[in-house]
Amino acid sequence: MRQPIVTLTTDFGLADHFVGAMKGAILSIEPRARIVDISHLIAPYSVAEAAFVLWQAYACFPRGTVHVAVVDPGVGSARRTLLVEAAGQYFVAPDNGVLSIILAREKHKVRAITAERYFRQPVSRTFHGRDIFAPVAGHLARGVAPSRFGRLISDCVRGEFAEPAASGSSGWEGCVLKVDRFGNLITNFPSARHEGLRTGEFEMRAGRRRITKHVSSYSEGRRGELFVIGGSSGLLEIAVNQGSAARLAGLAAGSLVQLRLVPAYTVGNGDKSTTKEENR
Amino acid sequence: MRQPIVTLTTDFGLADHFVGAMKGAILSIEPRARIVDISHLIAPYSVAEAAFVLWQAYACFPRGTVHVAVVDPGVGSARRTLLVEAAGQYFVAPDNGVLSIILAREKHKVRAITAERYFRQPVSRTFHGRDIFAPVAGHLARGVAPSRFGRLISDCVRGEFAEPAASGSSGWEGCVLKVDRFGNLITNFPSARHEGLRTGEFEMRAGRRRITKHVSSYSEGRRGELFVIGGSSGLLEIAVNQGSAARLAGLAAGSLVQLRLVPAYTVGNGDKSTTKEENR
Amino acid sequence: MRQPIVTLTTDFGLADHFVGAMKGAILSIEPRARIVDISHLIAPYSVAEAAFVLWQAYACFPRGTVHVAVVDPGVGSARRTLLVEAAGQYFVAPDNGVLSIILAREKHKVRAITAERYFRQPVSRTFHGRDIFAPVAGHLARGVAPSRFGRLISDCVRGEFAEPAASGSSGWEGCVLKVDRFGNLITNFPSARHEGLRTGEFEMRAGRRRITKHVSSYSEGRRGELFVIGGSSGLLEIAVNQGSAARLAGLAAGSLVQLRLVPAYTVGNGDKSTTKEENR
Repeated sequence: MRQPIVTLTTDFGLADHFVGAMKGAILSIEPRARIVDISHLIAPYSVAEAAFVLWQAYACFPRGTVHVAVVDPGVGSARRTLLVEAAGQYFVAPDNGVLSIILAREKHKVRAITAERYFRQPVSRTFHGRDIFAPVAGHLARGVAPSRFGRLISDCVRGEFAEPAASGSSGWEGCVLKVDRFGNLITNFPSARHEGLRTGEFEMRAGRRRITKHVSSYSEGRRGELFVIGGSSGLLEIAVNQGSAARLAGLAAGSLVQLRLVPAYTVGNGDKSTTKEENR
Repeated sequence: MRQPIVTLTTDFGLADHFVGAMKGAILSIEPRARIVDISHLIAPYSVAEAAFVLWQAYACFPRGTVHVAVVDPGVGSARRTLLVEAAGQYFVAPDNGVLSIILAREKHKVRAITAERYFRQPVSRTFHGRDIFAPVAGHLARGVAPSRFGRLISDCVRGEFAEPAASGSSGWEGCVLKVDRFGNLITNFPSARHEGLRTGEFEMRAGRRRITKHVSSYSEGRRGELFVIGGSSGLLEIAVNQGSAARLAGLAAGSLVQLRLVPAYTVGNGDKSTTKEENR
Repeated sequence: MRQPIVTLTTDFGLADHFVGAMKGAILSIEPRARIVDISHLIAPYSVAEAAFVLWQAYACFPRGTVHVAVVDPGVGSARRTLLVEAAGQYFVAPDNGVLSIILAREKHKVRAITAERYFRQPVSRTFHGRDIFAPVAGHLARGVAPSRFGRLISDCVRGEFAEPAASGSSGWEGCVLKVDRFGNLITNFPSARHEGLRTGEFEMRAGRRRITKHVSSYSEGRRGELFVIGGSSGLLEIAVNQGSAARLAGLAAGSLVQLRLVPAYTVGNGDKSTTKEENR
């Protein structure tokens, strides 16, 4: 028996009826759907955070999965609703950039959903999660072809979740994309582009901290010592063993991060001590 | 294959083993059950909040769904356990008013559950969620007839989740039922009863605020400006675009809300500025 | 159709993509798996709390259930990954003591998982939940025999989640294992060993409080009055009716708790008033 998977990523929180109502709306249309929560604790209205979280999760799911992302400050306005096909999976979301990291990395088709016969009637002005996103996901899970929902478009909104910019001959400027639950600072520096990073051969500046240590597992770090590690997300993270790097460094999502490669002759220089606080 | 749906609404939170234990108890009896969380973050012991949340969610679910609500300050005392049939669905809950909004709006049969053979033995004095509510839900999901659980009763507890009371010739007094995650204040004024509400033709008083603006989507509101909107719950909400109305107005669940229609000749009066703070 | 159950207990929280990614990894291997969250809000790195929560929940689940516990400060280091068979169920967890309460109470077989062909490749150094624990659980759920994952071992790590120690002729010293959401203090005193406990015949000291009242349901207690109750976990709890015992007594997980039986002739002594604060 086919048991289609539908995932949910929202900023609805877990205290209200919103998520339960969406699940009921999906199951009313496709009772066999397996509904998987990715996160409902996206910071309210944070399109970028939802984009990051969904991007991190979707690749673990099998082909045919339907992903629903509802972070939607524009609900009730004229913003369009998108149905994206990418990586053999489906994505239903408002046209506000929440899918833009995935769109930048995967071949895709984008449609603007207009077929109101797949909506829950009457459509409220404030809860499209229940009335549009969930029913569309239910119908997709049931096997309705994407082309039935609306026409292909090519002008959807792209977010500015930039990769780091070059700065000088051996440096880049990037930012913290997300602070995870452990206080690890996930930057937008792709690990793959910085594979050769070695302790003492680089410096990363973040807030008032200068980090020069690179490790390959959290437990290699000393307690209280900031280090750079290639995180499971494929991005460089600033972390500390069994502690919160965010608290230690006083940083948050959006904080500026600078990376600079250090000329070889300075390696081993005693002044390069890791995470030393600087006078400014 | 039948895959019965069982929903859970509790004040157990998500940090303990309580919810997991209930799910195990359900799945031990009916392994095919699809368990859907509505909310486990009901404020501890808040029967009214649970009543509101379950009322908002149940109508989205298909016939045959079994809803379990466990907000139960009287656990271990003599309070009865109810099995309600309404709207083609089943509701299992303590007899403390948690189902009273649904009972007020749907035709129903109410039974007091007494058939101990459907309980998990031994029944603890403190965790009926695991030992009574979950197993009863599992047996219902498995297809046991409601009549097997106990006799019909007609004297179950009704909550005082009142609709607004008339106050003078063109006014009402109601209250805030719930603050949602975004800080929107959900009142107990039914939108349908106030469909003609237009900016300048009413005033809503809530705390020290007077609101005279009505919008039909959140994005119509200016930042920092309180307005009234017909929410997705079918109730009037006090809200503000991309902000917390609860914080702005200093209000919480239970706060008094007064609504008054304004005679037509005052429309457009410059003194009726929206959300102006009043001297008292 | 077989629908294997996989439960998850982690300290990953609910705001990140971690849990969603694990679920995707499981469903990619065994699309029929029913995934049940026990808790993702274990205090970060708290092996003891995860051990308590999983121990409380597992006995409610049917035979064949696969339980995954990921509280793993040593991720990326040399610590082993365990596959335990006990009580007809399976447990996949790091070798750090998180299964030790179950191991102390159930007959078991313990294996060190070494068969990398069941891992998600490439295995990251920081997210074994997605790359090792989830895929192993998926393959177990799919029916792969435990012996395929690795060899039996007999030297796994045991936690020090001690039972109370005797102290004098009629006393014991124990501790608070967990504060639940309601502020009830769950001690490590087994209720079964103290079944005869009656008001006035014992005193329990916890912080600056002395408790001499025993009740059999929460609603028997007066508001503001601490009492001892045999909790649903099979352990004695310190609680207060409709309030937080933790806040009232100023205690937290790990706090010392002393229990002493009181000679019969002191029963009814006026000085034995319940929860009286003591001068020290």
